[in-house]
Parts: sequence; C-alpha cells; structure tokens
Amino acid sequence: MVSEWDAHTSLTAAGDGLFGAELDPGWIVGGGVNGGYLLGVVGRAIAETVPTKPHPLAVSAHYVSASRPGPAQVSTRVLREGGSVATVAAELGQEGTTRISVLATYGDLRAMPDDVDTTAEEPVLPPLEECVPASTAPEDVRRLAPMMERFDMRFDPACVGWAMGEPSGKGHIQAWFRMADGHDVDPVGLLMVCDALPPVTFDLGRPGWAPTLELTVHVRGVPAPGWLTVSHRTRNVAGGMFEEDCEVWDSAGRLVAQSRQLAMQPRR
Amino acid sequence: MVSEWDAHTSLTAAGDGLFGAELDPGWIVGGGVNGGYLLGVVGRAIAETVPTKPHPLAVSAHYVSASRPGPAQVSTRVLREGGSVATVAAELGQEGTTRISVLATYGDLRAMPDDVDTTAEEPVLPPLEECVPASTAPEDVRRLAPMMERFDMRFDPACVGWAMGEPSGKGHIQAWFRMADGHDVDPVGLLMVCDALPPVTFDLGRPGWAPTLELTVHVRGVPAPGWLTVSHRTRNVAGGMFEEDCEVWDSAGRLVAQSRQLAMQPRR
Repeated sequence: MVSEWDAHTSLTAAGDGLFGAELDPGWIVGGGVNGGYLLGVVGRAIAETVPTKPHPLAVSAHYVSASRPGPAQVSTRVLREGGSVATVAAELGQEGTTRISVLATYGDLRAMPDDVDTTAEEPVLPPLEECVPASTAPEDVRRLAPMMERFDMRFDPACVGWAMGEPSGKGHIQAWFRMADGHDVDPVGLLMVCDALPPVTFDLGRPGWAPTLELTVHVRGVPAPGWLTVSHRTRNVAGGMFEEDCEVWDSAGRLVAQSRQLAMQPRR
Repeated sequence: MVSEWDAHTSLTAAGDGLFGAELDPGWIVGGGVNGGYLLGVVGRAIAETVPTKPHPLAVSAHYVSASRPGPAQVSTRVLREGGSVATVAAELGQEGTTRISVLATYGDLRAMPDDVDTTAEEPVLPPLEECVPASTAPEDVRRLAPMMERFDMRFDPACVGWAMGEPSGKGHIQAWFRMADGHDVDPVGLLMVCDALPPVTFDLGRPGWAPTLELTVHVRGVPAPGWLTVSHRTRNVAGGMFEEDCEVWDSAGRLVAQSRQLAMQPRR
C-alpha cells in the first residue's frame, strides 16, 4: 500500500530535471502550505535526479512566496556529482512564480562510516500514554491546520502549557511523532518532520503563524522504524525574528536529523 | 584607509549581476581558500546587487569544489525583491567551475524591530591578556594557515589544550576575535567570522582539515565596534560527518550571528 506521504509527494518526471507535482490541500496550516511538506516534495525530486545519492545530507531552503494547494513545478539542476556526494540546486514554482529555492548536498547514508560519537542527549519524554495527543486540540485549531491530521503527535505535558493558555516561556516544545497512517519516515521525509511541530514561539506566549525565511536540515542517519521524538527550541528571539532548532531522534536512540530555521516572529 | 577585508573582497561589477573578484592568497588554510572568506566575497556581491537590503539575514552556502587564489567570477540572480527582504541566488566560480553555490535572504538590520529577548548566554572568557594569542602558534602551523595572519584571535585557555596535544574532548573552542588591522567587522564580514576559528574537531583530538559541505549563517544584528567573542561547538559526530555551531557575540553583549555547518570529519 502506498503511504499517504508517498502519494502526496508523487512526481511526474518531464525530463531535463523537470517534474510536475500536485500540492495536497491536506498540508495547509494557517494561510499557506506547510514549508516542510514543500521541502519534502523538492527533496524527492532531487533524489530522483541523482538516484545513486538518494539521501539528503544537507538541504537549505529559502522561502520566497506563499504556496497554494494545486499544481506545482519542480526544476532541479546538478551542480556537481562526484563519487560520494552530489550538489543540486532546485526550485519549486507555481504559475511561473518561485515558491521556494533550494540547495542540497545528497549522498548515500548507508555508505557512510558507522561511527557515532554524539554528545547530544536524547530528549526525555514521558511514555506515549502520558503525553498529550494533538488530536485533542480544539475543533477551530484543527480546522485552521488540516496538516495536523497527517501526523500522530503526542506532546510532552511539560511543554504543552501553551495549548491551555499557559506557555512555559522556556522556548521548548517536544513530542512523540509518527505519520497518521503508521508508515515509517524515510530520510527525505525527515525534511518535513523538521517543520511539522507548531512554532516554538507558542511556548513563549506568542501564538500565530511564523513565516519561515530559511530552513536548513542535516540528515544524519536512516531512521529506524517506529516512533520518532522531535524537539524544537529557540534561544535568540530578537530583531523581529527567531531561530528554531529542531532535533529528530529515532527509536534506536540516534540523532537522525538536526535543523535550524530563521523565521519572522508572529505579530502580537 | 581601506581595510584589508574591504581590499580582499573588492569586486569589479560587470553588469547583469556579474562581478569579477581576486581571491587573495592570504586566505589559504590547509590546501584551499577559506570557505568563510569565499562566502564573504559572495556576500558582498549580493549586497551590491540589492543595495537597499545591504545586510545578510540568512545565507546558505554549499561547497562544490576547492578554490584557488586568483581570479574568480561571482554571479547573482534576484529571485524576489519585496519591501523588506530580497532572496538572491549566487555562485562563485573559477575557470568555468562552480566553487560555491549560495542562497541568501537579505534585508536591512537597522530597519528591523529592536526587541531582544534572547535566552542564549554570552560566552564567559577570561580577560584578553589571560587568553592565548593565535600568534604564538608554531611556525609550521602558521605556514600552513596564512589565514591566521588576518586576525587577532585570543583563545580561551580552557579550550585550547589541543594546541598542546591535550584536547579537552568537549567539542568546544572559543576565542576573542578581531581583524588584525583593527577594523571592525560589518554584517557581511560576520559570514567570514563564522568560519574563522579552527575546526571544533581539534578539541576532540581529531586535527586536520575538515572540508565543509554546507554552511548557513544567520546575521541577527549589526555588530557594535570592538572585540567579538566567537564560540564553536559540536554535539553530533557521526557517520563520518559533524555539525559545527558557531555563535558570534559583540562587545555590547548581543548575539549577532549564529551559524551551523556540516563538515566531513578529518581523516584519522
């Protein structure tokens, strides 16, 4: 059975690095289409462009204009393809207007050395059944964010006060995460996971849409099957902007993705 | 008097977003030209392309091939220019070969809101006179890294054991930083500062050149005049790669730049 993710990111190859896509309305959040989903669509086009380097290692996206559900075009251009990595430029456009522009370095994570010498600490979350499912969000929130139906997210109760009007003020949100249809996330899917949780500014008492200017994801391993844990943090809220650092850990306790984005602060 | 930095990043505009540059041999480190310097050259070309948005907000560079001192060409292409930000794609090439490819979002930091609500903590370093000047490095190190002559760097003695063969193993290096000629660093110059210290892997007992795959810098403020403090950390050494997070704080105690790069581990 095709996963929902595979269906929503499916592409029609038109040759010369050009692909047709259909942005699914199920990824609307606030006024636009989720930036992580867009990056996943582009990420898949890049993987199809350099098939012997199927995995994103580092992907940088700059968000140029807001996307709408419906047809989109992805163009890819190989800047260099060497023995172990390829560098590819890509854009996603709609009706002749660039939506996001991407630079990516791809490789094969299975061919990398298997050393792990990580000093980062795995997030500690209460067991699944003690966490707060996103499905308990109020009806009006869910109507504004159909994207939430794509996931099974269980928030750490210590970081979900914002949902009850009591943000912790720490700038930290973390949750268990998997796709709603139970399919496992692959390396390209991690590009989306890094932008799936609510903006970390919710935890600072600043609800509202936080437009992403730039998002870079490093994919550091093929995720083991099962639940992921995802954390968002911010440390530098200043000048009308904030950075959001995301970590994704897999069920084997490995840090499989790290991302940072620069976003505009929600209007107060 | 023109600063050394301005002289080394000077450009000849050829119209249509094309610029000629001359990569100065004073930026050689190990076998190639420092990636932060290259990013500064490209960053300056972008600033000249969108003069009403002179400051980098977010700049992502993917390193495609090693540069050599001498002539280089920079091409810029404006993807979108709005009221407050512009998104620009750029490449630096030599003899028809792409060296680095860049995506950038530029704006005017002086026009941004002046709120600062940062929870990040300023690095604590001993006074300048108690820190270890890079100029005390052995002659053979300095011959391999002429770039070091561009800066006045004073390393925190707690993080410089690697220079004496006793790395701390913490994955942390920090130093006072200014340009050797005493000129202050401007926002474009911060792109270079984020790649100026030795690789943080030195502190893990892994000396050697660490080729950058990708470097993204967020510039968050115009640095106040005077000394900067710069810190490098890594938390995820795995799969033959490591991430390096850099923070640059100015003399007024503001976090003016944050960067992350993905680099290949030095060969053991």
